[in-house]
Amino acid sequence: MGTAIQNKPLDTGHLTVDLNCDMGESYGIYTLGNDEAILDHVSSANIACGYHAGNPAIMRKTVALALAKNVAIGAHPGLPDLVGFGRREMTITHQEAFDMVVYQVGALNGFVKAAGGKLHHVKPHGALYNMAALSAGLSEAIAEAVYKVCPEAVLYGLAGSALTKAGKNVGLRTANEVFADRTYQQDGTLTSRRLPNALITDQNEAVKQVIRMVKEGKVLSQQGTEFTIQADTVCIHGDGPHALAFARFIRQTLENESIVVQPIKS
Amino acid sequence: MGTAIQNKPLDTGHLTVDLNCDMGESYGIYTLGNDEAILDHVSSANIACGYHAGNPAIMRKTVALALAKNVAIGAHPGLPDLVGFGRREMTITHQEAFDMVVYQVGALNGFVKAAGGKLHHVKPHGALYNMAALSAGLSEAIAEAVYKVCPEAVLYGLAGSALTKAGKNVGLRTANEVFADRTYQQDGTLTSRRLPNALITDQNEAVKQVIRMVKEGKVLSQQGTEFTIQADTVCIHGDGPHALAFARFIRQTLENESIVVQPIKS
Amino acid sequence: MGTAIQNKPLDTGHLTVDLNCDMGESYGIYTLGNDEAILDHVSSANIACGYHAGNPAIMRKTVALALAKNVAIGAHPGLPDLVGFGRREMTITHQEAFDMVVYQVGALNGFVKAAGGKLHHVKPHGALYNMAALSAGLSEAIAEAVYKVCPEAVLYGLAGSALTKAGKNVGLRTANEVFADRTYQQDGTLTSRRLPNALITDQNEAVKQVIRMVKEGKVLSQQGTEFTIQADTVCIHGDGPHALAFARFIRQTLENESIVVQPIKS
Amino acid sequence: MGTAIQNKPLDTGHLTVDLNCDMGESYGIYTLGNDEAILDHVSSANIACGYHAGNPAIMRKTVALALAKNVAIGAHPGLPDLVGFGRREMTITHQEAFDMVVYQVGALNGFVKAAGGKLHHVKPHGALYNMAALSAGLSEAIAEAVYKVCPEAVLYGLAGSALTKAGKNVGLRTANEVFADRTYQQDGTLTSRRLPNALITDQNEAVKQVIRMVKEGKVLSQQGTEFTIQADTVCIHGDGPHALAFARFIRQTLENESIVVQPIKS
Repeated sequence: MGTAIQNKPLDTGHLTVDLNCDMGESYGIYTLGNDEAILDHVSSANIACGYHAGNPAIMRKTVALALAKNVAIGAHPGLPDLVGFGRREMTITHQEAFDMVVYQVGALNGFVKAAGGKLHHVKPHGALYNMAALSAGLSEAIAEAVYKVCPEAVLYGLAGSALTKAGKNVGLRTANEVFADRTYQQDGTLTSRRLPNALITDQNEAVKQVIRMVKEGKVLSQQGTEFTIQADTVCIHGDGPHALAFARFIRQTLENESIVVQPIKS
Repeated sequence: MGTAIQNKPLDTGHLTVDLNCDMGESYGIYTLGNDEAILDHVSSANIACGYHAGNPAIMRKTVALALAKNVAIGAHPGLPDLVGFGRREMTITHQEAFDMVVYQVGALNGFVKAAGGKLHHVKPHGALYNMAALSAGLSEAIAEAVYKVCPEAVLYGLAGSALTKAGKNVGLRTANEVFADRTYQQDGTLTSRRLPNALITDQNEAVKQVIRMVKEGKVLSQQGTEFTIQADTVCIHGDGPHALAFARFIRQTLENESIVVQPIKS
Repeated sequence: MGTAIQNKPLDTGHLTVDLNCDMGESYGIYTLGNDEAILDHVSSANIACGYHAGNPAIMRKTVALALAKNVAIGAHPGLPDLVGFGRREMTITHQEAFDMVVYQVGALNGFVKAAGGKLHHVKPHGALYNMAALSAGLSEAIAEAVYKVCPEAVLYGLAGSALTKAGKNVGLRTANEVFADRTYQQDGTLTSRRLPNALITDQNEAVKQVIRMVKEGKVLSQQGTEFTIQADTVCIHGDGPHALAFARFIRQTLENESIVVQPIKS
Repeated sequence: MGTAIQNKPLDTGHLTVDLNCDMGESYGIYTLGNDEAILDHVSSANIACGYHAGNPAIMRKTVALALAKNVAIGAHPGLPDLVGFGRREMTITHQEAFDMVVYQVGALNGFVKAAGGKLHHVKPHGALYNMAALSAGLSEAIAEAVYKVCPEAVLYGLAGSALTKAGKNVGLRTANEVFADRTYQQDGTLTSRRLPNALITDQNEAVKQVIRMVKEGKVLSQQGTEFTIQADTVCIHGDGPHALAFARFIRQTLENESIVVQPIKS
């Protein structure tokens, strides 16, 4: 049985949390994000596997960078939709989800093995992540795929979602993911990007929300109610003009609060 | 150090040879070949990995079939050219060759692990195979990729080519591949398909050539001279109207000659 | 303003209907269907454009075949999903639908012009067709795309659906499409393939349904009620073991009933 | 019969030349170049068609930008190799070249027609351009494709190459393309990028070379000999940190020299 209790106090009395970022999302001649610089501030990297972004050369280089900077390496499988960056929902069967996760995790794992590293985690990307959060069946298929290819990997999913539940059920270690710059609804879901106030644009507000999630396990919803949330890992965005500054800021602020930033134990 | 001496007499005094066939070359709705039936007659299967053919569902199903029929499973990586079936040469760098082999072998290995099997060998496909046969640099890149992802795998290459040499140099076990239905030039290369007499269309002639290669290690070139060849594994084609009949015929004839058909020892 | 009244009696007193079939759905080395033989029996061909099936060589050859057999040529654009054959729904924006239809119709039109022909119609494929049938917005985007690239083209859509309505609104000539081998619900939609009785497997029943739709403009629903339907064009499937026999049979039976099989007037 | 004499003096006594730039080479979420700004300085735009770069949305937007800025619109077809940006040579048949040009020119033409514009020219991209420059057969196939889809289009090719010859032979108007920032060999070919001195990095030198090519029809080779060259259109690169500044500079300098920058007459 897997367990998701990650940010309990260390023996030293310190709280811990993981900072993760999607990486390796360049493609051929195209560059996205600023992976090398961001890697100095996060503790785990989710590396695209060629379906929504990434190609073999990018995968190899990103794995090498993460290894060199001692950042935990994860596979970041997505829907087969390069032109839509894996953000467009597709009606796939559970079997198709299983198959595309096996394929992509296997491929990324090839580069990890070739580089002498170890695959630490898997986090589905974009629409696949969102669809899984709401579908027990899809989540089971994804969790099963991860378990069968790499049973020691940690499965990252939206905190409290169907995906982390499925991971635990299948026997995987899981990590509940929270977002610094997104607001929450009272049912624990993220506010849709189609609604106003979906994003927290003020850096200080964003980090304050994270610190409270880590320290108190609570978050304030858009409806004004509080609810319990487990924050094992915090998603940082790697692209956008302020991404690097924010990565540096959140890392520094967490450490100032004596929260140790480190990968999920696998 | 790898070694390629595979078809030496067994302790029982019997010669051995491997029969391999390219498989899993269907794609989505499209069906190619007759994998299930052919698998009854070969000892190793080279499974396409999604670049020149194959998609995750096909890969999963083909791995399952091979496991069920106790046929050794190999990865069959190709150039990224689905519309050209990986048969069109591309000017790729050695690094690109390395990367695309790592990616595809890793992906196929995902399905093999998910099914509880073991990856037995790697054989490049089509233009990648032909380009490698003639290029030491490309062959080194491919061999290095295989070795780093799966050092226990056997590397299949054209008998006596740069690819098997590179495999041995990097420390892989290798298999010298011969063709039943192709004629040879005096320098040991296959007669180009653009020339007349490239193909041996008579079944008996084709099998006779194979038996001589296995028993005597010799083959007659188109120029009338004989040369030495090591026949560790024989390539059988899986598509075409006569593929199944020929597979059955060559298997039966080899066994009648007391040649044991079995996978390369890995 | 477009009009969809196509199968009104000819001056000679004969009823008319179009028989259409999806074609050019092979891809590279893969063959699907039996286009050349089917073309002898239909009056219009919907040619895949490379997104769900088809590649440039196949498009060129299929256009040439249709021209040679005097069959009206249509573009058959689909979702960008070769591995799923365009049958998996994707959440695309209306703008994305517009763009992918312009691209694919333009590409097919290139081959039609190169062959000295004329693009006669456009029929969306698979999930795009089904999604459009139910969405006014998506249908408007598709109709607008067709109108802007080829205003003389006829837009084929499910009889009475949002797609034919949108086509008329934008100024296109439209064709109401019916299915020989599918049953209908009382609201005019096709019975879902997930339900029993979705398919009419008896050839005689299938053709009887078509003849009644053409002659009386009526069809019997699964609920036992009749409703009005306009049958301008009948979809025939080109793959499957009985496709060719059925194409021959329906063509012959319609002609025996003095129904003239001919393309929609454009 | 086409003719390539484009930069003869205007009636006003002024020389003319075209400035062209490759555009629309972004893809999905990925941005390449600075098309909108560059379009202020060039007279013709070569728009990628989805094979080496570009997707339908990018094609539509780039066509709209070019139309709005009154820049002549060209199709820029490439090899089917997104990950390699169409820069890796592939051994394609002449028929395959014909087919891929018809497909891509047709697709781009769809967007041009949808926007109410007119396709002005076609310029092959990357490896396809380079391969065509040296192969009469490949050039004939490309020229034939352009002629059959859009006989009024101007075919751009390397000055004095097999491609412009083939264009003229088939009846197309052609444009001889020269490069500002590349050096030439005494046989009229570009110095290979693998050799030192392939690139002219000094802006003033680059523009001086162009002005001499336009005014005197001469260029100095790396071997120190001069040869005759016809400079109908000058290729400007749209990406790289100095691309915009150079575009502005060459345009301004040409105008200061009383050379009128305008599209090739079609």
